[in-house]
Amino acid sequence: MQAVILAAGLGTRLRPYTTNFPKPLLSVAGRELLYRHLRLLKEAGVQEFIIVINPRHERYFQRFLQKHPEFSCSLVLNPHPERGNGYSFYLAQQKVKGPFVLVMGDHVYEPSFVSQAVSLKGLIVDPEGLFIDHNEATKALCEGGYVQRLGKDLSHYTGFDTGFFVLSPEVFTVAETLIARQKEVSLSEIMVQARIPCSFLPGLFWMDVDTPEDLKKATVYLIKQSVKGRGDGLVSRWLNRRVSTWISARVISWLTPNQATLLTTFLGLLAALLLFRSPWMAALLYQFSSALDGIDGEIARASLRTSAFGGWLDSVLDRLVDFSFLLVLGLLFSPQGLAEFAVYLWAIFGSIMVSYTSERYRGAFGTDLQADIPALQWVPGKRDERVFLSMVFVILGHVKALYLLLALLTNLRVFLTLVLVWRAKRP
Amino acid sequence: MQAVILAAGLGTRLRPYTTNFPKPLLSVAGRELLYRHLRLLKEAGVQEFIIVINPRHERYFQRFLQKHPEFSCSLVLNPHPERGNGYSFYLAQQKVKGPFVLVMGDHVYEPSFVSQAVSLKGLIVDPEGLFIDHNEATKALCEGGYVQRLGKDLSHYTGFDTGFFVLSPEVFTVAETLIARQKEVSLSEIMVQARIPCSFLPGLFWMDVDTPEDLKKATVYLIKQSVKGRGDGLVSRWLNRRVSTWISARVISWLTPNQATLLTTFLGLLAALLLFRSPWMAALLYQFSSALDGIDGEIARASLRTSAFGGWLDSVLDRLVDFSFLLVLGLLFSPQGLAEFAVYLWAIFGSIMVSYTSERYRGAFGTDLQADIPALQWVPGKRDERVFLSMVFVILGHVKALYLLLALLTNLRVFLTLVLVWRAKRP
Repeated sequence: MQAVILAAGLGTRLRPYTTNFPKPLLSVAGRELLYRHLRLLKEAGVQEFIIVINPRHERYFQRFLQKHPEFSCSLVLNPHPERGNGYSFYLAQQKVKGPFVLVMGDHVYEPSFVSQAVSLKGLIVDPEGLFIDHNEATKALCEGGYVQRLGKDLSHYTGFDTGFFVLSPEVFTVAETLIARQKEVSLSEIMVQARIPCSFLPGLFWMDVDTPEDLKKATVYLIKQSVKGRGDGLVSRWLNRRVSTWISARVISWLTPNQATLLTTFLGLLAALLLFRSPWMAALLYQFSSALDGIDGEIARASLRTSAFGGWLDSVLDRLVDFSFLLVLGLLFSPQGLAEFAVYLWAIFGSIMVSYTSERYRGAFGTDLQADIPALQWVPGKRDERVFLSMVFVILGHVKALYLLLALLTNLRVFLTLVLVWRAKRP
Repeated sequence: MQAVILAAGLGTRLRPYTTNFPKPLLSVAGRELLYRHLRLLKEAGVQEFIIVINPRHERYFQRFLQKHPEFSCSLVLNPHPERGNGYSFYLAQQKVKGPFVLVMGDHVYEPSFVSQAVSLKGLIVDPEGLFIDHNEATKALCEGGYVQRLGKDLSHYTGFDTGFFVLSPEVFTVAETLIARQKEVSLSEIMVQARIPCSFLPGLFWMDVDTPEDLKKATVYLIKQSVKGRGDGLVSRWLNRRVSTWISARVISWLTPNQATLLTTFLGLLAALLLFRSPWMAALLYQFSSALDGIDGEIARASLRTSAFGGWLDSVLDRLVDFSFLLVLGLLFSPQGLAEFAVYLWAIFGSIMVSYTSERYRGAFGTDLQADIPALQWVPGKRDERVFLSMVFVILGHVKALYLLLALLTNLRVFLTLVLVWRAKRP
């Protein structure tokens, strides 16, 4: 399958960023808009890209493509951008061989939007438009399964034009007729005349980037989308993720995911050492490092930089930080007597095993433990909760009670995991 | 692709087992010979099976197939088994539609033999015959890429007839001519006349099962094959596997893999409790349970009963046993002072993390840590080595030294894993 990307616009509303620079090469959440299209479409099965550009931006696109030989792209120059985006579209005809995806170079979509949209037909219409300004957006009126009208000022409409189309080459015949007749042709005119079908895709993040504020807004949304469905614990959802996403949006353009992992590990180990000096400050720092623990994953997913290595490193270093904190705590508040000693050891064991059982599950089944056994979502003992409890109990000075609580919570969770997995997965 | 399985022989040399019972339904390593063929060929891409049988065994085969609706099989009755296995082969013609696999019902192959053989051509010849009696075996003489002669008494030969063929339906023309001319026709005659090609597949386990001793021999070999390439530590290779494979061969027909897991876990936990009574007996029992720890995997692989759940359960319960032993040891030989306490905690942490780093690696990369980073094979700290060292040091009474040794070995291994994975896999 091929994809046509219209990238010839001048982006006047994004000045000064676009005074001499093409809008599709501006970055959102640490990646150029164009890179996002190429990467997500390629993952969805598109093998060849046709990018229609303004000749004055050619060198910027050339340089970009040289940096990304993994994408098979050809540039089509539009010497008359003033003839409208319909004309840009028409120029792509020379390279199109069969059914193709058409997408606007200045739009941004979350990954699952693209992976689902490519298997639909015609214009992808979003009936809800949760993330866009409804006044500014292009509306679509669909009737009988076909696009009847497109425009900003429709009083009656079915949904919003997402700028994402799945088309067959016949559309070019309509484009040709219009181009021969008019000086300026808009894409909307062509699509309405061609009576292309409508498909609906609600609830997913997409938007077009028109103003400097949009660049920031899109970054924040992409980071928020990266957090969905991670199986977060309570503390994560209500506290940690608010902190981490706020920070992620501010560091994503210059911090790599692995740097973020090392940074939060460093803070966690520092918290363990700080216990020797000031337990309550250490406890706060430990909780703060736990709040930052989501950053690596968030910026990795939002900037399309996830790696198996990153996930592995993050997990292993989290275990090291947790152990270090409990180790120093044990040195400072030594368990007295054999019962306390045993409780303390079970707390350490359980803390690691909560993660072990779930990571080993992924190794065995290739799927997520909490996704497969949703009941576990309601069982406490996950890291965010353990760290938060540690903070509270250390500040209150009830360290021995913390040992007991951790030992009970974590080992209960491990035990329930064993029982539930046994029931669900025993052959 | 289809497969023809010749199962009409009377198995006279396997009496009394086969007095009224067909040889292909006898079990080797906990599974019927026929089940092994169906299962492994299906995994190798064969979709349809044609089984040629003796009419007097029909009800046994019918019952077997009812138990296994996952295989799409049809039975062809041979009313004249006395006309030779060439005649049985000829009868399969009616159901064969294209290229097909031909395999002898009384042979047994290790899984990788079947998965490799199906993509070869003609008669699969084993130039080495490592696992068979060379006097009894059928030899093959290949010249110019084709089978020239087949027989037990060839003085000059290229290798051994494995009873596994990949053929095209033209072979049946030759069979037809011979059947018309002779009363008794052997498969070997047909294959030599048809000038089928020779392919070579050395070094893998296969054999034909002719005598009661062969049944036992095949079981033992299959269990030994199941141990290959498991990335065993030194103690496993030289001690534990010898014990476990010996036992596996004796229990495989009545013990399931998960029962074996629960049994070794029970022995391990018993060893931890026994520490309160007699440390040296407990140490021996702990090492014995570690030697038995391989049984679940061995019988699962040899009897084609591996499951993701089994692997998960075994890993989680191993951690529980190791922790329990170290916990009780810590209660009996309490670390004195903060330094000893810290060393003891690091020993527990490292013992779990050796496994955590490698299991989390599989979850992240989907591949085996030691296979990807072979250098780790030479770094001690794996479970078999830890348990063996625990036994030795507990018996010698040097428990504090054991803590130190375990803390050093395991955490060194974890640290090296971090460094080596970082170097090999960082994006």
